[in-house]
Formats: sequence, structure tokens, C-alpha cells
Amino acid sequence: MPRPVTLFTGQWADLPFEEVCKLASGWGYDGLEIACWGDHFDVAQAVSSPSYVASRREILDRYGLKVWAISNHLTGQAVCDNPIDERHQGILSPAVWGDGDAEGVRQRAASALKDTARAARLLGVDTVVGFTGSSIWHLVAMFPPVPPSMITRGYEDFAARWNPILDVFDSEGVRFAHEVHPSEIAYDYWSTVAALDAVEHREAFGLNFDPSHFVWQDLDPVGFLWDFKDRIYHVDCKESVKQFNGRNGRLGSHLPWGDPRRGWDFVSTGHGDVPWEPVFRMLNSIGYSGPISVEWEDAGMDRLVGAPDALAFVRKLTSIEPPEASFDAAFSSGS
Amino acid sequence: MPRPVTLFTGQWADLPFEEVCKLASGWGYDGLEIACWGDHFDVAQAVSSPSYVASRREILDRYGLKVWAISNHLTGQAVCDNPIDERHQGILSPAVWGDGDAEGVRQRAASALKDTARAARLLGVDTVVGFTGSSIWHLVAMFPPVPPSMITRGYEDFAARWNPILDVFDSEGVRFAHEVHPSEIAYDYWSTVAALDAVEHREAFGLNFDPSHFVWQDLDPVGFLWDFKDRIYHVDCKESVKQFNGRNGRLGSHLPWGDPRRGWDFVSTGHGDVPWEPVFRMLNSIGYSGPISVEWEDAGMDRLVGAPDALAFVRKLTSIEPPEASFDAAFSSGS
Amino acid sequence: MPRPVTLFTGQWADLPFEEVCKLASGWGYDGLEIACWGDHFDVAQAVSSPSYVASRREILDRYGLKVWAISNHLTGQAVCDNPIDERHQGILSPAVWGDGDAEGVRQRAASALKDTARAARLLGVDTVVGFTGSSIWHLVAMFPPVPPSMITRGYEDFAARWNPILDVFDSEGVRFAHEVHPSEIAYDYWSTVAALDAVEHREAFGLNFDPSHFVWQDLDPVGFLWDFKDRIYHVDCKESVKQFNGRNGRLGSHLPWGDPRRGWDFVSTGHGDVPWEPVFRMLNSIGYSGPISVEWEDAGMDRLVGAPDALAFVRKLTSIEPPEASFDAAFSSGS
Amino acid sequence: MPRPVTLFTGQWADLPFEEVCKLASGWGYDGLEIACWGDHFDVAQAVSSPSYVASRREILDRYGLKVWAISNHLTGQAVCDNPIDERHQGILSPAVWGDGDAEGVRQRAASALKDTARAARLLGVDTVVGFTGSSIWHLVAMFPPVPPSMITRGYEDFAARWNPILDVFDSEGVRFAHEVHPSEIAYDYWSTVAALDAVEHREAFGLNFDPSHFVWQDLDPVGFLWDFKDRIYHVDCKESVKQFNGRNGRLGSHLPWGDPRRGWDFVSTGHGDVPWEPVFRMLNSIGYSGPISVEWEDAGMDRLVGAPDALAFVRKLTSIEPPEASFDAAFSSGS
Amino acid sequence: MPRPVTLFTGQWADLPFEEVCKLASGWGYDGLEIACWGDHFDVAQAVSSPSYVASRREILDRYGLKVWAISNHLTGQAVCDNPIDERHQGILSPAVWGDGDAEGVRQRAASALKDTARAARLLGVDTVVGFTGSSIWHLVAMFPPVPPSMITRGYEDFAARWNPILDVFDSEGVRFAHEVHPSEIAYDYWSTVAALDAVEHREAFGLNFDPSHFVWQDLDPVGFLWDFKDRIYHVDCKESVKQFNGRNGRLGSHLPWGDPRRGWDFVSTGHGDVPWEPVFRMLNSIGYSGPISVEWEDAGMDRLVGAPDALAFVRKLTSIEPPEASFDAAFSSGS
Amino acid sequence: MPRPVTLFTGQWADLPFEEVCKLASGWGYDGLEIACWGDHFDVAQAVSSPSYVASRREILDRYGLKVWAISNHLTGQAVCDNPIDERHQGILSPAVWGDGDAEGVRQRAASALKDTARAARLLGVDTVVGFTGSSIWHLVAMFPPVPPSMITRGYEDFAARWNPILDVFDSEGVRFAHEVHPSEIAYDYWSTVAALDAVEHREAFGLNFDPSHFVWQDLDPVGFLWDFKDRIYHVDCKESVKQFNGRNGRLGSHLPWGDPRRGWDFVSTGHGDVPWEPVFRMLNSIGYSGPISVEWEDAGMDRLVGAPDALAFVRKLTSIEPPEASFDAAFSSGS
Repeated sequence: MPRPVTLFTGQWADLPFEEVCKLASGWGYDGLEIACWGDHFDVAQAVSSPSYVASRREILDRYGLKVWAISNHLTGQAVCDNPIDERHQGILSPAVWGDGDAEGVRQRAASALKDTARAARLLGVDTVVGFTGSSIWHLVAMFPPVPPSMITRGYEDFAARWNPILDVFDSEGVRFAHEVHPSEIAYDYWSTVAALDAVEHREAFGLNFDPSHFVWQDLDPVGFLWDFKDRIYHVDCKESVKQFNGRNGRLGSHLPWGDPRRGWDFVSTGHGDVPWEPVFRMLNSIGYSGPISVEWEDAGMDRLVGAPDALAFVRKLTSIEPPEASFDAAFSSGS
Repeated sequence: MPRPVTLFTGQWADLPFEEVCKLASGWGYDGLEIACWGDHFDVAQAVSSPSYVASRREILDRYGLKVWAISNHLTGQAVCDNPIDERHQGILSPAVWGDGDAEGVRQRAASALKDTARAARLLGVDTVVGFTGSSIWHLVAMFPPVPPSMITRGYEDFAARWNPILDVFDSEGVRFAHEVHPSEIAYDYWSTVAALDAVEHREAFGLNFDPSHFVWQDLDPVGFLWDFKDRIYHVDCKESVKQFNGRNGRLGSHLPWGDPRRGWDFVSTGHGDVPWEPVFRMLNSIGYSGPISVEWEDAGMDRLVGAPDALAFVRKLTSIEPPEASFDAAFSSGS
Repeated sequence: MPRPVTLFTGQWADLPFEEVCKLASGWGYDGLEIACWGDHFDVAQAVSSPSYVASRREILDRYGLKVWAISNHLTGQAVCDNPIDERHQGILSPAVWGDGDAEGVRQRAASALKDTARAARLLGVDTVVGFTGSSIWHLVAMFPPVPPSMITRGYEDFAARWNPILDVFDSEGVRFAHEVHPSEIAYDYWSTVAALDAVEHREAFGLNFDPSHFVWQDLDPVGFLWDFKDRIYHVDCKESVKQFNGRNGRLGSHLPWGDPRRGWDFVSTGHGDVPWEPVFRMLNSIGYSGPISVEWEDAGMDRLVGAPDALAFVRKLTSIEPPEASFDAAFSSGS
Repeated sequence: MPRPVTLFTGQWADLPFEEVCKLASGWGYDGLEIACWGDHFDVAQAVSSPSYVASRREILDRYGLKVWAISNHLTGQAVCDNPIDERHQGILSPAVWGDGDAEGVRQRAASALKDTARAARLLGVDTVVGFTGSSIWHLVAMFPPVPPSMITRGYEDFAARWNPILDVFDSEGVRFAHEVHPSEIAYDYWSTVAALDAVEHREAFGLNFDPSHFVWQDLDPVGFLWDFKDRIYHVDCKESVKQFNGRNGRLGSHLPWGDPRRGWDFVSTGHGDVPWEPVFRMLNSIGYSGPISVEWEDAGMDRLVGAPDALAFVRKLTSIEPPEASFDAAFSSGS
Repeated sequence: MPRPVTLFTGQWADLPFEEVCKLASGWGYDGLEIACWGDHFDVAQAVSSPSYVASRREILDRYGLKVWAISNHLTGQAVCDNPIDERHQGILSPAVWGDGDAEGVRQRAASALKDTARAARLLGVDTVVGFTGSSIWHLVAMFPPVPPSMITRGYEDFAARWNPILDVFDSEGVRFAHEVHPSEIAYDYWSTVAALDAVEHREAFGLNFDPSHFVWQDLDPVGFLWDFKDRIYHVDCKESVKQFNGRNGRLGSHLPWGDPRRGWDFVSTGHGDVPWEPVFRMLNSIGYSGPISVEWEDAGMDRLVGAPDALAFVRKLTSIEPPEASFDAAFSSGS
Repeated sequence: MPRPVTLFTGQWADLPFEEVCKLASGWGYDGLEIACWGDHFDVAQAVSSPSYVASRREILDRYGLKVWAISNHLTGQAVCDNPIDERHQGILSPAVWGDGDAEGVRQRAASALKDTARAARLLGVDTVVGFTGSSIWHLVAMFPPVPPSMITRGYEDFAARWNPILDVFDSEGVRFAHEVHPSEIAYDYWSTVAALDAVEHREAFGLNFDPSHFVWQDLDPVGFLWDFKDRIYHVDCKESVKQFNGRNGRLGSHLPWGDPRRGWDFVSTGHGDVPWEPVFRMLNSIGYSGPISVEWEDAGMDRLVGAPDALAFVRKLTSIEPPEASFDAAFSSGS
């Protein structure tokens, strides 16, 4: 049977959960990767009120949707970030933001992440997708000169803040799938190696494979899957496109999404530069057995047009599966 | 006569000024682009003690070196930066750093920049090369989501802090040449457009052309020169090389200079990916009349080997100059 | 609502107008870009006989087709061309060709172009698409050596011949959309700049964006749209493909269309090297509000197969439109 | 009428012939390129028993399938090969393998190839597709150093063994279409030239165009068609994809098909790097009038999914045909 | 012995012949490719006055210079050109231009070419380098539509005008080396094939290999040498560079040499995009035994700087020659 | 101190050892990588006659040459090869070839390799460079279909034959540096992984880094050094160049070295496509401390011209070394 295809609800959190369910079901999605914000999935309620989780399940069932993962990118971001500022206030729940004191925000975010593992268990889900934040991301330009010790401290801070969270994941039997992404502790190949080293490759900490930021960093997503094949816990089909012309730069020029002068941008899955067919073939090769989730974002297209378009694109790729039993190649192969 | 070639002393500030003069002169450089740190050029002394400037001149004369520009990247960095932290403490003079209170540091840095203009005038130099810093650079990843107003505020902050400085430049008849660079208000093509807009294209604010960061951002340095031809006030021949292989990323993975896993690195001028000959031909075409300064940095080579190597490379390029009078093409052109 | 898609009738002028209407309507085109040759639209009749225009309208209405532009490439070509020879005789009406005396041809062509503006107004159309011709195109190889004054004279000749025509356009409230194309006064980026300069950027003179000749000249059609965004008056989706192999050259080797040894050739829209999706996204970004016209030409495909194929291709692209209102990115954006 | 599309049965020889007919017919194939192994087509029976050929015809007719070519790659391989070993035993009929003595195998294979020509004639087919084998392929690495005389001997051996076979082809009015392929006497452009020279360009010896091995050898399949246009006797649409990343090599690392570490692999037609549309346009240009055969092989996809997918892909390409009569370009071409 | 290197005097014809000899000799050139214009070599005098040729020889001998070829590009251009206009007046001798009537100019040019063969013989030179002109070059854009018969007539015109000239070449034992070049009958690969066909591959008509115009047409100069190996009669090392950026076009935008907005330009030999080392290796492979001539043109460099720079570059390449006797590879080759 | 540069004597074995010493010394090489064939270094004599080794040392000392490695590619080739044929006879000593029986040849070769380790120890050298041969190389095309067991058997055969040899290496304290190369057990990245696995990564078996065959297989030599950094025992600077044009293929078309129709060829070091500077920087990064050996082979150049040319090229690269102590970057880095 081909893999199930889910819709990540993060970019739809302005709509009520049920409306998103109705839309996704209507387009033919098999399930959802549910965002833990908007009214989609409230972690605090989930761990305190048994009926809440049941109510979510009921809505999903009504629309014939399954769930393999929940996502808490926004709260995860605050666990390690430095500085903490108005951008975080814009994405955090009032309870986590509190008085906005940076260290307090970080600790409340860590606590909420532990609850996310518990909530996942209650929902019957094995995987939480999300971000880690990073206390050293803002040093990325390496100027003013960055002492090596600052970098070391950053990875240590990550391990110190996340290990206790991952302990809860372990006790709940849930795995965290970190999305490799700018602003995070692991944003490319070698920083992923360093982050895995920092938590001593504990099994609770794996990766959400989202190749959209690989495109403009010129990272090879196919080789990445091979090299980290034991840590691919979830897959997000987010897409991006390069639009370089000598004037548009890799770093985006502080321009908003959708501005044609950006050097790259998010586009509807299947409209960009991710080598999707090799990615899907490699997912088969490494034995990835989970769902394929469409994370849809495209400032130049209406999402109501794009979401079904992306589903059709991904479905075609999921039809590429190796045969059950390879026929006797030596006998029948003619050339 | 071919252009003069100078050596930027920033990467040599651990050596006494006179020793740098001796070295540069011995290799055959025509002059220096003097860094305003180390003991090379002390702005505070320069504006307070007439004999100080004379003493610098005397050393230069002793070694037959000229000077067309001084550089104050390190102090300029602090004018707009946010956050201000231990990295800045590492590069600022104790007087500018003071108690390290961020806003105080910024204001003292601004004041020092005004003095830099005055010091340049006293030294008989028309151009100050440097950085602006930026209050919005740390937003570069655009996540957590950045409200457009935060970007707008960043450019306004830049204008508000630099316009008073540039007023002093105007009154001293000196121009500021901003180096387009990550961490700064202008770090690529479109952010340069925005920065020039922010100060309403006043003549005091121009550019130091240093293509080393264009390489890994895939910006076209030759087209940049054409499009900003009226704002090219100085040229630094700093060089970099791309070393992508699917694993090494554009953003450097928090790895130190010289680590072979970085996606790009600085290398000795002439050893990298800058298209230098087209750059020099374009400098001729746009009528750039200033010096060519070698900014040498290469973690994999000894600078005592590299500096004369770079000079030889650049000298060869400066021999490419259009003829005084074009001969009658119609008559003699045979094919 | 997505943009309307029209069919340019130039490559169908061997068929009666009504038959073309029937075909286009049957395939689902929204309208036509009507060629002013064959029996499709007779400018002379249009300006002299009110019933003629009404008769054209009636046919269009019968097939539910709209019209946003008429095209008079063939007559326009003769306004500036030098030399005028048998090739022109092959494409001009007998009235314009007359005795074939070059200057007489040019003046009659200019007169016919003025009438084209009048006819457009009578038809209720705001845009005339076409060619300018050029007195200097044949100098393109720059050998024998071309004195700069010959080039200057060429642009002056263009302005002198077209300004009076454009005056009529202005008084009729119609705009001329010049198609950037070899053989014309503007055939690439910088010659477009020069041509716009020559007529002092008067609003009556704009551009028909047809990227087919950009492909083999290696011009960036997307950047072209951005840089000339206030002069994009019409869009023709003509397509071409590069077929270089070291032997096939950029200039076509005097070989006919469809010969596989040509270095490039026209192909059915969607079968070539134009980056159509970025083009359509850029048209959205610059606010182009007109129709998309399919100019179909492919010597290797039957046009009855190709025209509906091209329509399907273009329709899919017109479904890429930015949403009415961008949802609150800061709230719902998860990564 | 568009070209017929056939399915090559070589990769389906583990299934009974009738089942393959049923499948191919059900998907809409027009005919088969029948493999002379499995139970698909038994050359020995065909030449000895008139009813056998009739029985094959009957099955084909029952499913509405035509046949333009039969293929005997496996037996042909043994005609020249050196060494002959267990790999050959795996693919040859017991009668040809016999006692496995190398020279005996070669001679029995040659004899079987003559019978293949006779069988083709009996089936009413003009073309036999296949391999030649090669006594010098194993020298490909050129180390240990290969004396030029060894190469010369190889081509001579090929001519000596195949000329008598081709004599039978001539007398039967059948042509042999050699598939350019590693392991064969002709495996790239210049070895094809040498092989044609070796048999003095006799008409009985032509080529089966299968571009799958051109992809990873970086040969231009389109130019190949032009240069050998009088020897293109059959076309196999087999597809392959490059998957180089600096670690995966051109030569496949002794890894099995489907291993993602191979530098290239076979994939379902339309999923790889063959420039199919230019190939089909060139086939039109050189006047190739035969069938298009899908040779389907993809270790990562189920053949029951792939075979109809490939047919749909190829059918779309066969719709690209030049018009019956080119319309008067001079009259109607507008730009 | 390495090949001799000569300097083509065409771009130095504003200087007296003796001054050019002095310069070339001083730089170390082995000889000259003498232009038949300026005062360098007057064909009319050469055929009428025996002492004239002797006087040229004497100057050459004085400076130790040899001569293997003379060049008459400018007069050759007029043999077939259409139109003939002020550009030709600018490059022709008054005697050939006469009253400027086009057909008269062509015939006088043809006559002068015959004399050039005679003059070459008198000077003891076997090769005349030059241009043919073309009556169809101005049709290169293929719009207005060009009837195939116009192209055919162009090649016939070329044959009709040049065959009588080539008869004189034959009788003098001199060969004409046509330089493949825009504006000429043969300007790329396939037009070279057509031109050679037009004169039925007569031996008197060969090629001057000058790859500078191959660069921007994306023709492969190395493959060209192989395919036309029996017609390479002379070699000019003229160099050019591509400078495309999405705005600069292949056709040069009517911009003068040296303008940085051109898509390509001539540059000093060794500063551009010609793959010189493969070219020189191929010249060895095809057994080209003549001189290497530097045709120097670079609007951005002083020729007095460039000519010796180019000589040093070419000299290094001429040191690449296969060994006299290949050592026993089988014995000594270790890997 | 920069690394020493040696000359590999394999391609000079037709000359007496002393003559090679004289040449190498005269050009300025620091030492030799001595081939164990010709009269350069006779392994059999070395292990039987103490004075032989002393005599070699004496010659080396006379010319001031050092030695860090000896090479026995030719004999090593026969240890595993299958088939064994006249090519091997051409490169083996009569003693090893014996009666030419394949298995006997293999065993005598294995025995000679053990002696090579002993001879290296006697000469005071820690490294033997060479080839392994391979019983499965001839299966490279994977057709006729190769059962996986045949591949497995090949790696097992390699281990079985080489482990006893490597035991002698271990007892002598010498390391074997296998050159990754077609025809060998490890010829690319993944076959190197498999070969190292086969001998369980025992320390006696490492690699001779020779990137010449990486070029045409499109392997990344720089990443290879990083990934196998603990097994780089020796470095050969052999060079090759790609010459693809759509007709020339990766596999060389059975054409001899120096034929311009080959898709790639060996060229003098510095004249090809190996990215030497990144290679040398990576050698510094991984701490390779041995010599750089020039393996010179170029069928298009005289070796007496090429060998000093290559030395000059390599010397320049060895001047790129990281500084003894990195200066305080935080202090002096200006941008």
C-alpha cells in the first residue's frame, strides 16, 4: 500500500480545526500533521482534560482522517532562543510568554514541550515534530568575530535544555523530530552532526526531513537522507525555488515572502527545485515507513488552489514503490 | 599610470604599525589602507594631538608608502548593532566599550566615527572605509516571523544614527565607504538599494567594493559595479572560494575559518572564485580612479607568503588599462 | 478571476477569420489577438467603413470571443527597414508595397500604422502589438566596422518615423506594444533601453513581452519584466528551445525552421526553455493586468494538435495567483 | 497517423507469453517487440515447426497486437564474448550452452542467430534487435596496457563471426539492429563507427537506438541519431537517471540495480535524464518510420504500475509530428 | 621544433610596416601575417613592380621575421557583400571602391583577390587568409520570412564569384583560407559545410581557424578542427570572452567594442573563453603544420602591453608537442 | 617546511635508474617514488642481496634524492586478476609470469608482494604503493546479469589473497597504499568502502590517493580525502582532463591514449581537471604528512618538457601551508 499523505495544519491555523479537517478530507488527504497552536491542538488542555483529546479524535474520525504526528514548532523555538523578543511574543501562547522575561519564557516553553510529549501519547501519536531554537543562531555571520567557546556553549545549552525534555519523551515512548532549519540548533548538514553529538545520538532525538531550506543552502537532500537514515522520523514536503539572477541573494535581502527580488522563496510543493523523485526513491531505499506530510506555503498562490495541487503531485510520487518481490533479473533481463 | 595597490592593515594589527610598513614596503606595495585599531591609527589621539598624525605620516614616508583611505570597521560595527555583547567587547577600544551598556556603546561608537572623519581630514585622506552595524541583521532567517515594521524600523534606525555622522563627514569633505557585508545594514544588492534609499542617496555615503561575500551569496560583482557606479568609493580585493559538495552549506555550519567542511572560506586574493579580470575591466569602464587595496585573509596560508603573492596577482590585473586613444578602428580593424 | 487567454491569429492567417474563431472558441480560448493581415482584420476597411468593424465584432460575439489587442507586425516592419526587398513584398499588402520604392514603402507603412491606431479605437481596443523595423539591424555583426554615428542615426531614424505615428496613438488613446525581436530597433535588453530613450520614454510606446527570442540570446525574461515593469503592455506566450551541441550555432546557419541542425527553434508553448512559471509569477508581481496571448509556432508539430495543448499549458499557469488577502503570517506560519 | 508503440517483452519473460499479451493489450500497446527467450518466441521451434509461428501469431491477433521486430539479445551476446562463464550459462538456452566450452558456445550462438533471421522472416518481421557480444570489452579499462593489435583483433573477430550471420540476414531480407551497449562491440559513438567500418557498412547491420546507456556516458543521443541516420533500424525507449553526488560513480561500484549509491540507474521511461522530446523530434527529422518500443526496467517501481505510465508518456510524444503540408510561412508568419 | 608564432598586422595598420616589424621582432615574434592594407602590403604594387616585393622582403629580413601567409580580409569582404555601403568605403582602397556602384565594387574586389594570389606567389607565400563577404548575411534573422530560394541563391552567388578567383589561386599554387566569421558566407559549422559544398570542396578553398566568434555562438572549436581537419590552412589566435548576466545579449546590443554591457567582447589572447590548450592539442592531432598567428584585439587593454603578453601565452602552448617516439607504454606504464 | 616532492619512476622505466636520478635531481625533485620494475628496483635482488639495496641508496645519495615509498603496481595487479592473459605477460617479470598458468601467476605475484614489503623495510621505506588486481572487475558492465554472489566472491577472493600479504607488511612495519583505479578491487568510492570492509579495515591496508581516475568518474577527490582521512598513506599527483562533446564517451571507445576522440585522457599535472588547490588544502586539513609524488603521463607532451613543468606547478601548491600559530583573529580581523 502506498504511503499515507497528510496535511500539516500550521499554515491553516487561522481557520477552525474542523474547517481544516473538512477541507483536507474533501481534497483526499489521508490525515493531518496537527499544529499545536490556533485551536487545532491545545497541549495544555490535552494533558489536563481527557475529554479534549477525545473531542479532537472525534472530529478527525468524522472526516475520516488519521494522525501520525503533532507539531509544536512555535513553542519549541523558545526553548533555546536568544534573544527573545517581540517575534516570540507573536507566536507564543500567553501562558508561555507570561511577562516576557527571556529565561522565564525559555523555561515555560521547555515545560510545554514536555507536555507535548505527554499529549502525543494521549492522542496515540509516536512523533512530535518541531524546532529547538538556538542560543547561537544569531552568530551565523561570524562577525564580529566569534570565539569558538561561544559556539561550544551553544551546543551545550541545547543539550542542557533538551535532555530533560527528551527524558519525558523517552518515558512516554514518543520521539522528537527536529526540523533542520535556519534559526535552529541544526540548520544544515554539519550542524546536524554537531547537534546529534551534543545529545549523544540518543534515540529520542531525530529529524523531521523538510528539504525546503536545503535548496538555497545547496545541500543535497538525497545524500542527507542516506547519511542520517536512522534518524529520519518524519517527512514534510515543503518546497522552495531558487530565483538567482546576480542581484537576488541567498539571504533574502530582508524582503518579505513573495517579493520577486528574493533569491529564493517557498512555493507550492512540486513547483520548485527540490528533487522530489530521488527523495521519494531514497525514502524507499532507507526504509522510511511513516507518512508524507504536505507543508504548504506559497505567497504567490491561493492555498485553496495549492493544497489539492500539492496532494496530486505527492500522490503520484507515492505510487513509486519497489515491487514486493524482485523477479529473477538474471533470467528475464534482456539488456 | 596603473592604479596604486595598497595593503589593508586590519589583519596585521597584532604587529606594530612600523613593522607592517616595513613589510608592505619590502613587498612593493604602494601604500596602506590603515586600520584604526591596534597601534596603527588611533582616532582619539589623531584628533587631540597634532603630533600624532605627523608621526604616522613620518613612518609612512620613511617606507615610501602612501595612504588614500583609513578604515574603522570595528567601531562602526557598534553604531547600530543589536544585540551588543561579548563579541563587541572583543573588538572595541575600552573607551568605546565603557561599561558595556548597549545604547551607551552605540553612542560612543557614533561619536568615534565622527572623530574618524576628522582624523581622516587631518591625515589628508578623503575616504573612510567601514561598517555600519545593523539592528535587524539578526532577523535574517525571517523566523520567528518578522513583522515588516521591524525591517522598516531597522533602516530608519540606521538613518537616524548615521545621518549625524555623515553630516560631520560632509563638513570635513570626507566620504564614508560602507563595506557590503553580512552583519551590516547593507549585505547584498537589494539591501544596498534600501540602505541608500534610507539616507536618501546622500553623497557622503558610498560603498567599499569587497566582493568576497558576493561569492557565496551568488551575487554578480561585475553587475553590482555597473549599477552602483556612482557610489564606488573604495575597492578591497578580498577573496573567497566556494567549496560545496552537498554537505557543506552556504551558512558555514558554525565552523571556524579554515575548516574544510565550511561551504565557503576566505582565501588569498587570486585563489578563489571572484572573477577578478572582469571586475578590473569594469572598474576601468565605470571610471573608478582610486586605489586597489588588498585585504588579505586565508586561514590555510601563511600571511607572509600570501601578501606578496596577492600583490603580484593584483599588479598583473592593474596592467589591464584601456589605451590612451583608441586607434581608428574602421581603418585598421581587419576582422 | 484568472487572466483571459487569447490566441494570436498571425500564424493562422491562411484560414478565414471565421474558421479561426470557430477553432479557438472550440478549444476554449477566451479571445483573440487579431492579426491585421489575411482576411482577419483589414485596417484600411476598418477606418473607412463602419460596418466592417461591426462585422468583425459580430463574428467574435458569435463565438463568444473577446479582443484586447490587434497586431500589425508585418506593416510595422516596413516603417524603418533598410534594405526593403522581396521579403517585404511577400508580407505587405499591395497598397503598402505599391511600386516597391523603399522610401515610399516606408511612408505608406507609417501611414497604415496610424490607421491601425484609429482602427483599434474603433474596435474598442487599447493596444496595438507590432514591430518597428530598423534601419540599422543589418549592421548587427559590426563588420565591416560600423562608425558610432551610423548607430546613432538608426535610433534617430526610428524616433523620427515613429513619433508622428505615436502622436496618433496618443490622440486615439491607444498604446503601441513593440515586440522585442531581431530585425527590430529593440532586440535585446540594452537596445530596448536605447529605443525607449530615443522616444523619450513617451507612454504611447511600450513593449509586447515575447520571450521566445530571449532564450537563444540568453537574456533573462524574468528580470526584464521587473526592469521594464511600467512598459509591459501585452504578453505573447511564444516558445523556443535551445538545441546546441557544439555544431549547431546561435545564429541558425541559414537553415529553415524545423531543421534539427539549427541551434534553436520555435516550439509549441510549454515545450521549450522559457521559464514560464517564474514569468507568470513576475507578471503577477508587477501587476500586469492584461491578457495572455498564445503565439503558436512549431514547425515540428501540427498546429491543430498544438493550439489546444498550449492553451492547457497556459491555463494551468494562470491558476497561479496570489490570494486576495494574505493571512496573518505571524500567527499561522509554523516554519 | 502517429507511430505505433510496442512493449519489449524481455523484462517480462518470467510470465507466459499470453499473459504478457493480455497485459500489454489491456494497457493499450499497439504491439510487442518479442524476446526470443522464456516461452515468448522459441527460435528453434520457429524454424522447425510451421505451426509454432502460427500459434504465436494467433495469440497476438487475439489481443490485437502487432509485431515489427523480434529480439535476441541473450544469444547474440555469446557470439563474440570472451570470457564465457556462468553469467552466460544463466541466460542461454541449454542447447546453446551445451557443455559450456567457450568456442563451442560461440559457434552455437552464431548458428542460433542465423536461425533468428529465418524465424523473423517466417513471422513476417524485417528487423531483429540484439547484441553482438565482444571479445575486447573486458579490456575497457586499458590496464594492464592493451597493445593496439588486441583492439584490432577484436573488431576483426566481430566481423569474422558476424559476416556469415549477416549473409543469412541478407538472404532472408531481414536487418540486424545492434543495440549500442556496454559489453558489446559498439558501446559508444566511436566504437559504433569502428564496428560499422569493420563490417564495411553493409546494410544488414544497423542499430537499435536505446539511449539509456548514453546518459551516464554523457553521449548526445540526438546528435547520434543525426550522424547515424541511415542505420537507425529500431528504437527502444529505455530510460536511465544520473545520481551523482561526488561519492556515487559512473561505473556503479559493483552495486545492484536499485541501490541508491549507484551513480546511475534504470528508471521507468519518462522518469530519467534522456531528452525524449528532442529525440522524438529528431526521429521525425531523419525519417525514422518504425515503431517505438518501450523497454521497461526500474528496480524501484512495480512494473505493473510502470508499464502503463511509460505508455502514456510515450504516446504524448508520438503526438508530436510535423504537419502534412507546411502552410505558407511567408504569408502567415507574423513574427 | 615548436611551431613559429606570427603577429597579424591588421590591427596595426595605422603604423608604418617597418615600425610594426620592429615591434614584433623586439617582442620575439617569429614572423608576420601581413595585412594587405595600410602600407603593409600593397597587392597592386606587388604584382606590377618586382622591386616592391623585394623591398618588403628586405624589411622583414632586417628584423629577422618570416612570413607564411598574407591577409586580405577587407577587399575579400566586398566580393559578395550586399548591401555595399559607407562601411565598405571605409575599408577599401580608393581603386577598389571607385564610384561606389555596388556591382562595380564587387568586380574590382574580385579582381584584386586574384592579384592577391599572384602577389602571394611572388612573395613566396602559399596561403592567403581572408573573408568572402556574403550576399545573404543580412537575412540572418530570418524575418521578414526568407524564401529558401534566397538562401540557395546566396551560396550560388558565392560559388559563381569565387570559383574564378580560386582558379587563379590554383594556377599560382596558393590556397585561400577563409575565416569563418559573421558577415561571411560561412559563419558557423553548418554554413561552413554549405560553403564547402557550394565550391565542391575544391582544394583551393580552405579555412582560417579563428575561434573568437565560436565563443559567443557556443560552437565547439575543438570538434570543428577534427571535422574539418583537411581544410585547416591557417590559424589565428584571436580571443573573446563571454560576459552574460541576463541583461547583456549574444548580439551585442549595437554597443561598441569595450562597452561592458556587450554580451561578449574581444580580449587579448589568453584572457578569454577559448579552450586554447585543447585547441593546440587538437592541432597537433590533426597534423596542422603551419604557423600560429596572434590576431590581437582588445578595446580594454593597450596593444603595446597586450601583444607581448599574448606571445608569452601562445609560446607556452606551443611547447606542448607529442614526443618524437612514444616510449613502450606497455612496458613502462605503471598505472 | 613545505612537503617534499618526488617523481614516480614508473613512466621512466625504459631509462636506466641512474639516468632518471640525474634528470629528477637536475629538475629539482626532492626524491623518487621508485618503481619495482625496469632496472629501478628489483625486489628479488633486494631481499637476497644486501649489497643491492646499498647500491640503490648510493645512487640516490649521489643525486641528493630521498625516497619515502616504492611502488609495485605491475606485480600487484596479478595477485587477484581474472582473466590473466597476454597483457599481464607484458608487464610481469619472467619469474612471476613463469608458464603463464593463471593461478600460478597469481600465487607467484602474491609471493613477490610479500618480498616487496621486506624490500621496503630493507630500503628503510614505510610505504609500498600498488595495485591489488581484481577477480570481478570484468563484471563492471553488469551484463550479462551478474549474480550478487559473484560480487561477494570477488571481495572475499581479494581478502583471502591479500590478508597473508598484509600479514608480512605488518610484521615488517610497512603499509600498503592501494591506488583506487579501474581494473582494481577498489575503483571508486563505494568499492573502496567495500574493499576496506573486506579486510576489516586493518591498518596495513590504506590508499594511495591518485585523483586522475576520479575526474572522469565524477568522483569528488576532496570529499574522498576527508572521508578516508585515516587511510591516506601516499599521494600521487597524476592528472587527467575531460574532453566530452557529445561524441566522446566516458569509457574511451577502445581508443589509445592521446587520441583526441577519447572522452578523457591523462595530461601533465596541472593541465587537467583535478581541483588541485582544494586537494592540497584538504591534505593539510587532514594532517597528511607524507610526500607529494608526481606521476607524469601525457601522450601529447614530451616528458622532458612535462616533468619540470609539473614540478613547478606542484611546488607552488606546496607553498600553501597554514601558519604555525594562528594570530588572534578576534583582535585583528577587520572584516
